[in-house]
Amino acid sequence: MKIGGRDTRTIVVSEDGRAVDALDQTRLPFEVAWKRLETLDDAVRAISTMVVRGAPLIGVTGAYGLWLAMAADPSDASLSHAREALVAARPTAVNLAWAVGRAGDAIASVAVGERAAVAAIVAGELADDDVATNLAIGAFGRELLEGLWEQIGRARPLRVLTHCNAGCLATVDGGTALAPIYAAAASGIDVHVIVDETRPRNQGASLTAFELREAGIALTVVADNASGHLLQRGEVDVVIVGADRVARNGDVANKIGTYLKALASQDSDVPFFVACPVSTIDVSVADGIADIPIERRSPREVTHVRGRLPDGTIAEVQIVQDGVEADNPAFDVTPGGLVTALVTELGVFSATSEGIDELFATLAGLEEGGS
Amino acid sequence: MKIGGRDTRTIVVSEDGRAVDALDQTRLPFEVAWKRLETLDDAVRAISTMVVRGAPLIGVTGAYGLWLAMAADPSDASLSHAREALVAARPTAVNLAWAVGRAGDAIASVAVGERAAVAAIVAGELADDDVATNLAIGAFGRELLEGLWEQIGRARPLRVLTHCNAGCLATVDGGTALAPIYAAAASGIDVHVIVDETRPRNQGASLTAFELREAGIALTVVADNASGHLLQRGEVDVVIVGADRVARNGDVANKIGTYLKALASQDSDVPFFVACPVSTIDVSVADGIADIPIERRSPREVTHVRGRLPDGTIAEVQIVQDGVEADNPAFDVTPGGLVTALVTELGVFSATSEGIDELFATLAGLEEGGS
Repeated sequence: MKIGGRDTRTIVVSEDGRAVDALDQTRLPFEVAWKRLETLDDAVRAISTMVVRGAPLIGVTGAYGLWLAMAADPSDASLSHAREALVAARPTAVNLAWAVGRAGDAIASVAVGERAAVAAIVAGELADDDVATNLAIGAFGRELLEGLWEQIGRARPLRVLTHCNAGCLATVDGGTALAPIYAAAASGIDVHVIVDETRPRNQGASLTAFELREAGIALTVVADNASGHLLQRGEVDVVIVGADRVARNGDVANKIGTYLKALASQDSDVPFFVACPVSTIDVSVADGIADIPIERRSPREVTHVRGRLPDGTIAEVQIVQDGVEADNPAFDVTPGGLVTALVTELGVFSATSEGIDELFATLAGLEEGGS
Repeated sequence: MKIGGRDTRTIVVSEDGRAVDALDQTRLPFEVAWKRLETLDDAVRAISTMVVRGAPLIGVTGAYGLWLAMAADPSDASLSHAREALVAARPTAVNLAWAVGRAGDAIASVAVGERAAVAAIVAGELADDDVATNLAIGAFGRELLEGLWEQIGRARPLRVLTHCNAGCLATVDGGTALAPIYAAAASGIDVHVIVDETRPRNQGASLTAFELREAGIALTVVADNASGHLLQRGEVDVVIVGADRVARNGDVANKIGTYLKALASQDSDVPFFVACPVSTIDVSVADGIADIPIERRSPREVTHVRGRLPDGTIAEVQIVQDGVEADNPAFDVTPGGLVTALVTELGVFSATSEGIDELFATLAGLEEGGS
């Protein structure tokens, strides 16, 4: 991603090679600050306090956390403590547990003296894999956007609506839902992104708007309520969102509010794409609506809003009276029937059991070819 | 409505009989303050700065503004200036123009010496009419809610979702969308209201939550994004919203975001009612989606959020970076096909041309009967 015109990742090994620098996302959009993570505890805190967020990025941060733990103490006890502490930092984050598990197993399989070096390599590989995956998602998604731009005769910007932040800031670099947009812009397609603010945490207004602007891509922030109207009036050509988890039947769990945009897209005959890595597909979940538990987060996210005061300081204002109850479901499930297609690093598949069969057949073919 | 346990209207003639006291809605929910309107200019400012808001209430405030103008100077020039100034205070408010027109014509038809007295009477009548209309809407709507409560065996609270504020605070008293809820609660139905916060101006989180709480009605505030999920999971039994304008074909213009709730209600087979006075039906608009112009309000409503700081002061925080564009359509249009029924002071009608034919036939019958 670009920040201040320079290319960077959201998490990098420090120049002295002894720590990790993570872009502090709690300070965005008003301040670009990096947090140096020197210890396992630093990594755990970065994950739990949302200095880093987004499934792919917290997974990679977890792997770097193992490295920091191994550099300090490569014993079995240290490794096992680090694995537990990292997974507990965001207990519902499937990707974190997966990344820590994979890196942890690789580290455990080598001699104590080699563990720090192996941990560094594995974490770096996970980071590189994420970037490569997102580039592939971007390439497949770009073709879809190009087709839609052709349909409107390249006469005006292609208007793409997105929700939350499934961008560079949710990944090591490149983004998932935003990857096709970056690829489209790079190939000369004139894109204009409509960014849902994404209450209650406002990741659209703060993070997506920030990274698109740094990349020089035209954007407009709207209240979440506005998307139905914009779709109905033909002011959106295509919707692209990310996913937290995709069920075996194609149902998509994603940031709260995604389902409403999907309904409005269908009502206005506008394509609704979900861009996500194959690792997002959870074959253990047969039916998304029936089986995906929805995390309820703190009501304080609804009752308070963080922003910048006129004097430049960052503050939280309360918007609901004391004593008024608030409810905060953090995700919702969009039925696969409302999803035009899943855009993955393996290609574009329908959000149905059949589509996912096909995706896994493609994957099996690649693994066979590669073996 | 109740405030601090006492019954009050949102606008009342002052105790000394020489001014009007309006509840200052810009200070809610954290402070209950009244604004004394002594002059035409005070009334104009109360309307333009949203001390008063809601179509019925600003109409009545306009009529009281004419009274204040006539009390100071009952000449033709003064009347004509007052009419213009009041209508210009919120140029898109159809109800304001209607109320000022009706009151202004009545005032113009009497001698200069009688104008102040007549203006006071007409404004009082408009206020009383609003209250009576809302009571009737409440009675018809209450029956619908009772039927739904029966359907769930009275086993648990009836969960009613509402959007924005179409409550007492939008009217002189009683509310439109909230009228059935107040009537239901008064008749012993156990209601729990799910209140959309209603970005960008947060009228749900601030105003609807305030007035329900003062009335002792159970409520939960949610982000606008949450409503689809709650409907999908069966956590909402019925949706009731107000309307800014209803087209001849039954399409409903209301606060931005209403259309999304209507889509989600349909997808989950949950009844979606629009409660509004007959005066909201605009026969000059044949097709709501095609013909109702949608006001774009200041982007600042999207980029800034007002609330209370920890020290108790009220402040605005900026949530989007300087230089990032925001778009702020203030209303959307819900196709009549998504509306289960219109709940009016004349009864319950389908949101179709035929339903509105029937409504006008009922009105004509009443007017014949009354003449």
